Amino acid sequence: MVVATDNYPSSNARRIPPTNISPNTILELEKGDPVVFEKYWKKRSEECSVVIRGWELMSYLGDAKNDVCWYMLPEVERGIRRLHHVVGNAVTHDAHIVVGTGATQLFQAAVFALSPPHSSKPINVLAAAPYYSEYQDEISILRSGLYQWGGDAASYEKNEPYIEVITSPNNPDGTIRGPVVKSEAKGKLVYDLAYYWPQYTPITHQADHDLMLFTFSKCTGHAGSRFGWAVVKDIEVARKMTRYVQMSSIGVSKESQTRVAKIIGVVCDGYQNFGSMESELYFEYSKRLLRERWGKLWAVIDESKLFSVARYPMAFCNFTNESSEPSPGFIWLKCEEGIEDCESYLLGKLKIRARGGKRFGVDSKYARISLIGTDGDFNEFLKRISNA
Amino acid sequence: MVVATDNYPSSNARRIPPTNISPNTILELEKGDPVVFEKYWKKRSEECSVVIRGWELMSYLGDAKNDVCWYMLPEVERGIRRLHHVVGNAVTHDAHIVVGTGATQLFQAAVFALSPPHSSKPINVLAAAPYYSEYQDEISILRSGLYQWGGDAASYEKNEPYIEVITSPNNPDGTIRGPVVKSEAKGKLVYDLAYYWPQYTPITHQADHDLMLFTFSKCTGHAGSRFGWAVVKDIEVARKMTRYVQMSSIGVSKESQTRVAKIIGVVCDGYQNFGSMESELYFEYSKRLLRERWGKLWAVIDESKLFSVARYPMAFCNFTNESSEPSPGFIWLKCEEGIEDCESYLLGKLKIRARGGKRFGVDSKYARISLIGTDGDFNEFLKRISNA
Repeated sequence: MVVATDNYPSSNARRIPPTNISPNTILELEKGDPVVFEKYWKKRSEECSVVIRGWELMSYLGDAKNDVCWYMLPEVERGIRRLHHVVGNAVTHDAHIVVGTGATQLFQAAVFALSPPHSSKPINVLAAAPYYSEYQDEISILRSGLYQWGGDAASYEKNEPYIEVITSPNNPDGTIRGPVVKSEAKGKLVYDLAYYWPQYTPITHQADHDLMLFTFSKCTGHAGSRFGWAVVKDIEVARKMTRYVQMSSIGVSKESQTRVAKIIGVVCDGYQNFGSMESELYFEYSKRLLRERWGKLWAVIDESKLFSVARYPMAFCNFTNESSEPSPGFIWLKCEEGIEDCESYLLGKLKIRARGGKRFGVDSKYARISLIGTDGDFNEFLKRISNA
Repeated sequence: MVVATDNYPSSNARRIPPTNISPNTILELEKGDPVVFEKYWKKRSEECSVVIRGWELMSYLGDAKNDVCWYMLPEVERGIRRLHHVVGNAVTHDAHIVVGTGATQLFQAAVFALSPPHSSKPINVLAAAPYYSEYQDEISILRSGLYQWGGDAASYEKNEPYIEVITSPNNPDGTIRGPVVKSEAKGKLVYDLAYYWPQYTPITHQADHDLMLFTFSKCTGHAGSRFGWAVVKDIEVARKMTRYVQMSSIGVSKESQTRVAKIIGVVCDGYQNFGSMESELYFEYSKRLLRERWGKLWAVIDESKLFSVARYPMAFCNFTNESSEPSPGFIWLKCEEGIEDCESYLLGKLKIRARGGKRFGVDSKYARISLIGTDGDFNEFLKRISNA
């Protein structure tokens, strides 16, 4: 069924451009490698170049004066605060910044920092299903005595302290979320806001939580840099997170840090300097890219008898000053009657590698598919599901 | 007592150059920040420059064809193998390379990979005292059910499986080591060869162990890059280590990787290209730097009634084709009679921050002091201990 809820930029959404991918090639859409944004950075290539000379950035130290996160370069901290100020997606003025080797390392640092250090039993770490598929393994891999995976937050009924991870917009399904645990027990909250950027979802408010995680990978698409940051109100929690990163990897690559500072600077300059062309600004451009893809996707899904995707509510974005639907980085596909295992069906029939619902704690009728890969892969994906 | 065991390059070792550090300033020599090598890289600055453009290195992937370490750039693997071939310090031809965010992350990856996954009790991780001060905390921080800190390998008597870490040359004391556990039980070995490079110690043989760890920090002095590598014979162990790094940080900074490949390339080119001036080659230059410092240090220590340092045996280095004493990156200082706590004495009386023996599992009469800091700090250190 066609539901016209939003105006998508492409006027010919139904035309799927030809690709030169053989129908026998497996489409690798299981991971969320954000290469869609590469074409923007090609336009900004020289402006964003960093040159690192042989003798530079040799020390472990980033800023001897920083008594919270000693390995962070000062320009990185300034850049992060400036970016949140420009976008208006998070309050940082009364919080500390801790950087990590991606949000993956910082998620573990946060759980470590919030776990009671002397408890006789591990604290439960929860997330509402469908939850990010890697949380469980990251929490469980070392069989820690400090914390353990506690499963779906919505069905948690123990009267024991817990840590709830709130992923918003959610990975895999792009929904906006708040805490869901109903237990009377005291819980600590970690907000994973990796996708709370204007290209993915309307910025409806400045997030202002005790502990928020962000990552460069999903903000600008530079996943190879392995760089993330936490915005943390309690200085002791921030220090414990820093201690975790120190024990885990003695800090964060200075090469990545210097590049992050450069690229964030270029993004912010675009918004703050007179004379920038709005359509060429990073978040406008990247939002347009994703909305074009979603427009094409809806055109296919609306005609499909085999697959469906839940609609997202419109919302007003304070950053772009317009109402729109979200345009998440993943497609959370549901197979209709007759197909019980969506992942297997996609791989077996269509040679599309997706990540099945079970990995996210839900039914195998669902599968997650990356929307942020190459143009070729995305168009081939559309072709295959529209012919299915 | 003066013992002339070696010819040190500086003819006026006893002259300590003046510094402009105030006697009230605390000298920070507790960490091993390898900034001494900066002056070499200033000479090679442009040659070693990397330029990273805005759109480059965006993917999580390093090499889709690598079925062991998928996030490693191919040029990094080639560079690592080439470097070991040039230096002759390790056999790599029948082994896999796994890269990590410093040897710190890889040490934990190694212990994870070697721990029995389904054992009812954690395996003991051991190292002979004095051992690297961070092993214990890295092993203990998450109270893992897979492994636990087992203390001094020399006094291990349990008839249970174990993992022994062999650090050679050793941190803190620079000695050459082999396994020491006498137990009948079966042990697995991890060789931490961070300092097995020609500037620190004669290269007497090609190390050829099942699992060897190296780090860029101590090889070239680029500690800020947070880059290390493991040479691993068993493909399943290598894959488990990769899995650990994936769970911990989804790989390793591509910016660091691209710089590592560049700098290793410049080092190797120097040795393999016709016309290089030997004294300007990296290992010759850096060895000279450290030997100059050791020459000055011996001149002071030999006159000291308060402090002593154990002598190292001479050995023939296959790489430099000469016999010499080692020139370790740390001074393992022993306080003589009357001073029970070396760390406290140094800090209280001489305003020198060192790391005390207790942290390394031995007597507090010992303390570790970095020899690889700035010229100013090193000379000020000499002045203070010679006046003590």
